[in-house]
Amino acid sequence: MKPPVDFYFDFLSPYGYLAATQIDDLAAHYDRDVVWRPFLVGVTVMNIMGMKPLMDTPLKSDYLKIDRPRMAKILGVPLVIPDLTGTNSLAASRAYYWQRETEPGRAKELAKRIFNRLWVEGRDITNAADVAEEGTALGIDGVDLCAAIQDDRVKGLLRDAVDDAVAQKVFGSPYFIVDGEPIWGVDRLWMLEHWLKYGNWSALA
Amino acid sequence: MKPPVDFYFDFLSPYGYLAATQIDDLAAHYDRDVVWRPFLVGVTVMNIMGMKPLMDTPLKSDYLKIDRPRMAKILGVPLVIPDLTGTNSLAASRAYYWQRETEPGRAKELAKRIFNRLWVEGRDITNAADVAEEGTALGIDGVDLCAAIQDDRVKGLLRDAVDDAVAQKVFGSPYFIVDGEPIWGVDRLWMLEHWLKYGNWSALA
Repeated sequence: MKPPVDFYFDFLSPYGYLAATQIDDLAAHYDRDVVWRPFLVGVTVMNIMGMKPLMDTPLKSDYLKIDRPRMAKILGVPLVIPDLTGTNSLAASRAYYWQRETEPGRAKELAKRIFNRLWVEGRDITNAADVAEEGTALGIDGVDLCAAIQDDRVKGLLRDAVDDAVAQKVFGSPYFIVDGEPIWGVDRLWMLEHWLKYGNWSALA
Repeated sequence: MKPPVDFYFDFLSPYGYLAATQIDDLAAHYDRDVVWRPFLVGVTVMNIMGMKPLMDTPLKSDYLKIDRPRMAKILGVPLVIPDLTGTNSLAASRAYYWQRETEPGRAKELAKRIFNRLWVEGRDITNAADVAEEGTALGIDGVDLCAAIQDDRVKGLLRDAVDDAVAQKVFGSPYFIVDGEPIWGVDRLWMLEHWLKYGNWSALA
């Protein structure tokens, strides 16, 4: 097995969700695992970059409204656009890293359910109870999960993950790193596949 | 012949250059012409968006340094990265729109030479003399060209072009509009081709 693909994303990112529907199958086709690495793109990375949220950026926000549904169509997956006012991905991200310590496979399943909850069902993921509902569907103890979300040590796991993303110079969602090559955006899955296939940046046919 | 593809770009944009090496052949393959529409992304659009120049944006600037050469490799074209301090694309853009009034084909050839001068030869395009050198190589009268660059009416042609870009909500370089669909980035040539091929956003095979 070759080194895994690192997949950085924020649960609040629709393009992160879209990438999540593709990345495992794409990587597996080229004999790679994928390490899912949720982080907080809005409250951390954009501060470092001095950027506004995308949907508060004139012109780009209009583009994104057109682009999100068509990208979902191209990828052949459902997408709804919920109102994200007051939504955050803290609890979901903490639950993921907590679950990953003991059950990495189930942690990824939890991440998929959280993405699905927000971007397919259009339901909130902010509260511990929201995340616990998805966890219990996978056999995770809901009380344990809610306790973990409030646990200082688990909070530290997420802080470390955000620090790691910044250290890797990750600045958007989704963001892939494969063999040291950084690749930003679900619109660059073709570029990720190029690397997985050839292991270099040889010219396209 | 189907409606043309609108190709918005700034001569100062390396990704605009990279797109320029591909777009005419790509569109022609699907029976489309391309209208080249240089504009000033830095001094106008980014002001509207409240954004910093990309190379002054932490994290993203590091990414671009890695990304530009590899994107050129993938597309199979040469690319040098000149120092852009003090460089601007005013004279080149004005000369383009002036030439397009009477000789649109030669205007596109001039644009290609300007891109080549900056991004392949690494030479300045800021001064009228720089642009005139490329124009005279195509049989354009250098004195006429230098006069046009300073002509108020010609300045107005570029202002109109920038206003048009803003009205079309263009916010980056390159930026394509085909049949009303906006597509941003040389990394989305695949998406442009998808539309040219199918005329809709049907799911990828």
